[in-house]
Amino acid sequence: MQADKRQILDEALGARRSRVQDYVRARAAAYAGCLAEGHLRDAVMSFVEHGGKGLRAQVLLLSCGLVGGNEELAVPAAAAVEAFHGWTLIHDDIIDRDLRRRGRPTIHEEYRRQAERQWGLSDPEARHYGHCLAILAGDVLQGWAVSLLCELNRKPGVSPEVVTYLIEDLNLRIRSGLMDGEMADVELPQLSLDALQPDAIIRMMHQKTGYLYEFAGRAGAMVGLNNADPSSPAAEALSSFAGRCGIAFQLQDDVLAVVGNERVLGKSTGSDITLGKRTVVNTYALEQAGEAQRRRLLRVFGNRQAAPAEVEEAKSLLKELGGVEYARNLAAAYLKEALGFLDAFPPSQPKELLVLLAEYMIDRQS
Amino acid sequence: MQADKRQILDEALGARRSRVQDYVRARAAAYAGCLAEGHLRDAVMSFVEHGGKGLRAQVLLLSCGLVGGNEELAVPAAAAVEAFHGWTLIHDDIIDRDLRRRGRPTIHEEYRRQAERQWGLSDPEARHYGHCLAILAGDVLQGWAVSLLCELNRKPGVSPEVVTYLIEDLNLRIRSGLMDGEMADVELPQLSLDALQPDAIIRMMHQKTGYLYEFAGRAGAMVGLNNADPSSPAAEALSSFAGRCGIAFQLQDDVLAVVGNERVLGKSTGSDITLGKRTVVNTYALEQAGEAQRRRLLRVFGNRQAAPAEVEEAKSLLKELGGVEYARNLAAAYLKEALGFLDAFPPSQPKELLVLLAEYMIDRQS
Repeated sequence: MQADKRQILDEALGARRSRVQDYVRARAAAYAGCLAEGHLRDAVMSFVEHGGKGLRAQVLLLSCGLVGGNEELAVPAAAAVEAFHGWTLIHDDIIDRDLRRRGRPTIHEEYRRQAERQWGLSDPEARHYGHCLAILAGDVLQGWAVSLLCELNRKPGVSPEVVTYLIEDLNLRIRSGLMDGEMADVELPQLSLDALQPDAIIRMMHQKTGYLYEFAGRAGAMVGLNNADPSSPAAEALSSFAGRCGIAFQLQDDVLAVVGNERVLGKSTGSDITLGKRTVVNTYALEQAGEAQRRRLLRVFGNRQAAPAEVEEAKSLLKELGGVEYARNLAAAYLKEALGFLDAFPPSQPKELLVLLAEYMIDRQS
Repeated sequence: MQADKRQILDEALGARRSRVQDYVRARAAAYAGCLAEGHLRDAVMSFVEHGGKGLRAQVLLLSCGLVGGNEELAVPAAAAVEAFHGWTLIHDDIIDRDLRRRGRPTIHEEYRRQAERQWGLSDPEARHYGHCLAILAGDVLQGWAVSLLCELNRKPGVSPEVVTYLIEDLNLRIRSGLMDGEMADVELPQLSLDALQPDAIIRMMHQKTGYLYEFAGRAGAMVGLNNADPSSPAAEALSSFAGRCGIAFQLQDDVLAVVGNERVLGKSTGSDITLGKRTVVNTYALEQAGEAQRRRLLRVFGNRQAAPAEVEEAKSLLKELGGVEYARNLAAAYLKEALGFLDAFPPSQPKELLVLLAEYMIDRQS
């Protein structure tokens, strides 16, 4: 792609990201009035203030635009998807014991420190306080996600049937899928490595990430067409497109967890290895490893006490054994599949932007 | 009240409790199809199966009946309130480190044991697994609560405006209040005892318990009248009635935490003392205590390592110092205030049942 065209498209995506972020901030300021001053409100507001890349929101808006809808009507749904994604991250960070997110301490870590500073709590008590705070902050944000979806009811041209469908879909099917994926992420490390089917990893990625992307594509189409039928051809195509993008995104995440730059990423790396996460990178490399390499990997794999140098060595080994390349190729295959679902749509700016966004899923370095 | 009349009323309340519980079970069986087989689904289903007293659901149905509505239409809303209450208990049990609930191990405790048995995890790892499971089980149940409210849309005679109002009210205002109350419960023990205002305790009880009861009263009236205005006189009166019932309920909870029978209660007692909870019972007793008594209480208060015998001694002291009696009198005052809000309604069976239910809030032993 030519550099000047790329720049125009980048700006168009950036404008959508800002539009949703502005909307989230404005609503959050109103919603925060329901909370008392203090740690809980500070935690939720600060999390919302430091939003992420907003990829799901952009998929949703562009899916609305692609079917000829007015993207502005879909802004509350895009904001809801970001808030929904946000609470899953907050709870996920507790579960994964991650210390950094979006270039800052995770909520449970931030308030562990605060409890130590402010009240001089002992380490286990301060940790417990951090966990409590993060559980509750995630719970508050879950409510905001529902309220944001309800705001669609105030948009003329979005029928109550579409809104109700989206609320139920997000809170029942999508949420269940995400939670199942989260559980698999917690449970798979308990299984013997040899018992693991590669399918189980892809299924987990589909659940943890693909489901919410699918929702974004489907919701954009349904709002754009003002059609409460989730199985219209456009809704199904955009759901499938977005779901594949999500899996490609997650594969790139697993790649960056090994070869990424922690400073650029804004979050900790290496925890996939020390937590023994069953990622495509890790399991492919373990399959390819000779006896000695396998022993070296297994010393670090699932060992939360591993020294930083050991973790670095394990990362190099995962690269050498082709785990990173294998995951990259798989991501490219999902991207290609995703783009196939756009074929049926005539050329348009939203379509160009969706292609660009899909390519970004595997080009990104953060 | 005559014994035979009491029995008729008890049966009428029991029938409502069963109706809601049956509805919850039927919907849960359908919702569970969205989850994979395994610990997460087992945990949520088992929690739903062993429902609580269903007091909020009964308040909601009877409020609907009191304004002349068809209680059957309000069943999904009553079920939603119970599911919503349920997830707050699951997360609250993690926060309070409680081991028993409804006569069974709490979810985090049950799956800590399972992880130990099934995978031989070390104690900290098994604990972490129990926490993860309980966080996610609560998250799943949050989604079910939203879906149950959406089921109202399938009831003829309930307008989409009423449903949307209830979804937003529950997820924004009520949820924020509950989470604030939960935070206060976690933070107040960090404050110096002398800095504590009695108002702060009542405010916390209003938030932790009163808000959801208020929602139950208001929602029942709004569905019964099919009126989306939450400030209609009936909705306001039933909201106020129910909120006062909730505070009376919570005060009785604090009383039972000291004088209750653990076996009858089905949950642990004594944790209010060892966690240093700022309850009306505890703070009143501390205010009344002489120097020596205060020292004895403070040895146990907020001391999670206190021996069982010390906890028992502290319980006796709380009684001697009048903390239990003071909380009982306060509960009776809230009950009286609650009943005053029913004055404007003409006599009816729902009214008699609401009076009976209100009296139960402070008579109950479990």
